[in-house]
This record gives sequence, structure tokens and C-alpha cells, in this order.
Amino acid sequence: MASSPKCRGKECPAPGPVPQGLIRLYSMRFCPFAQRTRLVLKAKGVEHDIININLVSKPDWFLEKNPSGTVPVLETSSGQVIYESPITCEYLDEVYPEKKLLPSDPFARAQHRMLMEHYSKVIPYFYKISMGKKRGEDVSTAEAEFKEKLVPLNEALAKKKTKYFGGDSISMTDYLIWPWFERAEMMGVMHLLADTPELKKWVEQMFDDPAVKATMFNSEVHKVFFDSYMDGKPNYDFDL
Amino acid sequence: MASSPKCRGKECPAPGPVPQGLIRLYSMRFCPFAQRTRLVLKAKGVEHDIININLVSKPDWFLEKNPSGTVPVLETSSGQVIYESPITCEYLDEVYPEKKLLPSDPFARAQHRMLMEHYSKVIPYFYKISMGKKRGEDVSTAEAEFKEKLVPLNEALAKKKTKYFGGDSISMTDYLIWPWFERAEMMGVMHLLADTPELKKWVEQMFDDPAVKATMFNSEVHKVFFDSYMDGKPNYDFDL
Repeated sequence: MASSPKCRGKECPAPGPVPQGLIRLYSMRFCPFAQRTRLVLKAKGVEHDIININLVSKPDWFLEKNPSGTVPVLETSSGQVIYESPITCEYLDEVYPEKKLLPSDPFARAQHRMLMEHYSKVIPYFYKISMGKKRGEDVSTAEAEFKEKLVPLNEALAKKKTKYFGGDSISMTDYLIWPWFERAEMMGVMHLLADTPELKKWVEQMFDDPAVKATMFNSEVHKVFFDSYMDGKPNYDFDL
Repeated sequence: MASSPKCRGKECPAPGPVPQGLIRLYSMRFCPFAQRTRLVLKAKGVEHDIININLVSKPDWFLEKNPSGTVPVLETSSGQVIYESPITCEYLDEVYPEKKLLPSDPFARAQHRMLMEHYSKVIPYFYKISMGKKRGEDVSTAEAEFKEKLVPLNEALAKKKTKYFGGDSISMTDYLIWPWFERAEMMGVMHLLADTPELKKWVEQMFDDPAVKATMFNSEVHKVFFDSYMDGKPNYDFDL
């Protein structure tokens, strides 16, 4: 692991090159997109170090790696750089063949990708609802739309009759969907899962997964970060 | 090929099942997203039939296959359904191993995906500029942003010093980027490529590709469709 988990801002010097045999993740401790990559690294047992980035004061050396300035970013010891969370996760699954998380069947892979495409339209609702509520707005329309958008996720689980989205063992789909549901209680959307019971059961089960346990924060910690973010002063190093 | 290329609307009966040994594409003749799949089918020599859909009067049997109602949609003879253009193209490349269009190297695959992610933010500009112009709006800001967004595409070509995005032979990246550049002249954005000469050269070369030739329309035909679309009466069957 890199020396300190504290986030590095504009004033911080660039880290040294990635040591041979390791892969590096540029992350932010509370970022759900970066958590996708952390989950996959953990689940596959990939040796890595992590550099946390101050996302309101980004170092130039970080922007050189990913001009869009988002995390997660992976860097290899030969200097290859990979960003966008689903792309980093697929890359890891292809490079580290132990414990494959994506199915090998082309149609099953396509199903995973179609569900991810749908889920990309679900994610904004976690924020619309939680932020709207915090601002005292009426979020009933967003809540109704969110519930409707959860139905295909519930159906995917109900049709398969398996514990996880990919079958009886945990897969890429589960890990890419997970981070927002870890925050569902804190974001005040957990009660909206009442009509999608398979999905609700999935959330409960996911808390037992070792990679989830290793990367998660509890609702209280998530709440402190979320509140600081909403106040315009994200506390990236909270609880360190 | 299916009996008629004419588009099928709400009143049209469902087509029969997909014959064994074929794959079916639900398409629309002028849709650039569906053209991506047509290019890949053609380039790989995959036997297929095509059913064109009336996108302003969608048949219920089509919406059952893809609830979001977009084309392209692939259907196999066992009834599997795949939608979202990049997903259909990757699926075809995985199922039909002849003439692989995606690289096998994981980092090269990640580079393809990162470029596609960037390109998804370029596509809206083709419409912003062409539709804005048609409405007599000032599009200079959109034009400047578009030119800036083309730079990474130009750089990807310049760095590689190869004829195509994936190397010296045509690849998935080229086909997924292509359809909007085929329409660039008609959309009035071709002159905006003056500062990205590698990209401009790429466009000129792409017109020689056999799959491009087999799926393309000329600017005059594209213009008739575009104008009919802008008038709210898309002429899906023009020139049949």
C-alpha cells in the first residue's frame, strides 16, 4: 500500500512510479465509482497500492493521467493508464485471470452490459432523491421513477432465481451495482425497495461478501462525508 | 434477407422466428447507431436478415423485445435479444470469431473502450450544430467545443501513425466512430476538421472500406432523410 491514505491535492508532489508486480489505483475513499474498482481488486486478490486524490484541488500530475479528472484511474508499472469504472473493472478481469468475475458466454456478457447500461440511468436517482430531500424539495416524482427503474433489476434476480445477478456466486454485475446500495440507508432510499423484494434480499446478502466488508463504510461514516460534500467542503480524510 | 426493407409500424404483424443459422437485426435504414451493427455484420460476413422499424409508430412486438424502443436490436434463432449498439457489436465479435475486430490485448481493449466513452460525448455535437444551423441559431460555441472534442481522436491516430484507430487494418473502433462522419458533409461540420488533419485523412480513407460502401448512403440521400426528420415526418422508406 502507498504510504498514506490521506488525499493528495494540487500542492502534493507526484508519487513515484508504480512498483513492478503491483497495479496502482487512484481513488477517493468515499467515491462509489472508485469503490467498484476496489471491490474487483479485493475480490480477485490483486496486489495494488492506492493513491487518494483531493477531487476539489486536483494535482496537475493526476490531470495528466486522466484529463477528465475523475476517479477511478488504474496505472500499471509500465505506465499504462486506464479510467472509467466499468473499463477498469473489465481490464482487471481480463489481465488477472484468477476468479473470473465476468461470464465467458457472449450472451451472458451482453446481458451484464445491458443491465449496466440500464443501471447507469438508475444511479442519478440516488442523488436526486437524497440531495433533493436535504434541500427540502418534493422528491415524490423522483421516488416513483426510481422505484420503476428498480423493477428490471428485481426481475433479473427473480428470473434467475439465484443469490446473485450472475448466478449462485458473486460476479462483476453485483460489484458494479453495489456501491450505491451500500449508501441506500444513508441516502434515505432504502424504504423504496419494498416493492422489489428480490433486490432487497440481494442488498441484505451483499453485506456478507468479504470484498464488500473490506471496502465498505457504515452509514454513519458515509453520512458525515455526504453532509460535508453537500456543504461544499468534502471531508475526504474523515475518520483517518 | 427478410422479405421487404420497408419499415414496419404498429399495425404490422410480428415477423416469424429467426431462421436457424441466421441472426436478425432490427434496424432503421438511416440510423447511425444501427449502422454500427450493420458495419460489423458486413465486415465479419455474418449471415443475417434485417427488419426495419418505424420508430415513430413502434409495433408492440418490437417494444417487447427492447422496452426502450431503440434500434439496433439483435435477435438469435434461440430468441436471445441484444440491444445498445456497442453491446451488439461486441457480442457479434465474440460469437463470430472470423475477422476479429476487437484487439485481444486487454490494454488495447481498454483504450478502445475509453475512446468510445469519449466519443459518446462527441456524438451530440453533430446534432447540436446541424439542427441549430437549420433553426438559424448561433452555433459558434458548439462548433468550438466540437473542434476541441475532436482533438483526442486526432491524437489517437497521430500517436499510432497507422491508417486506422486500431492499427493498419480496420477495427471495431473505426466502425463505431464512422456513421456520424459519413454524415459530416450533410450535417455541415466537415469544415470543422481542418485543425485535425489525421482525422480528416481517416474520414477520406474510410469511404474506401467495403463494409462502409455496402452500408452507406450518399449525402443527398442522407439530407432528404434528415430534412424529413427535422420536419417531424421522418421518411424511413425514402429511395426504396
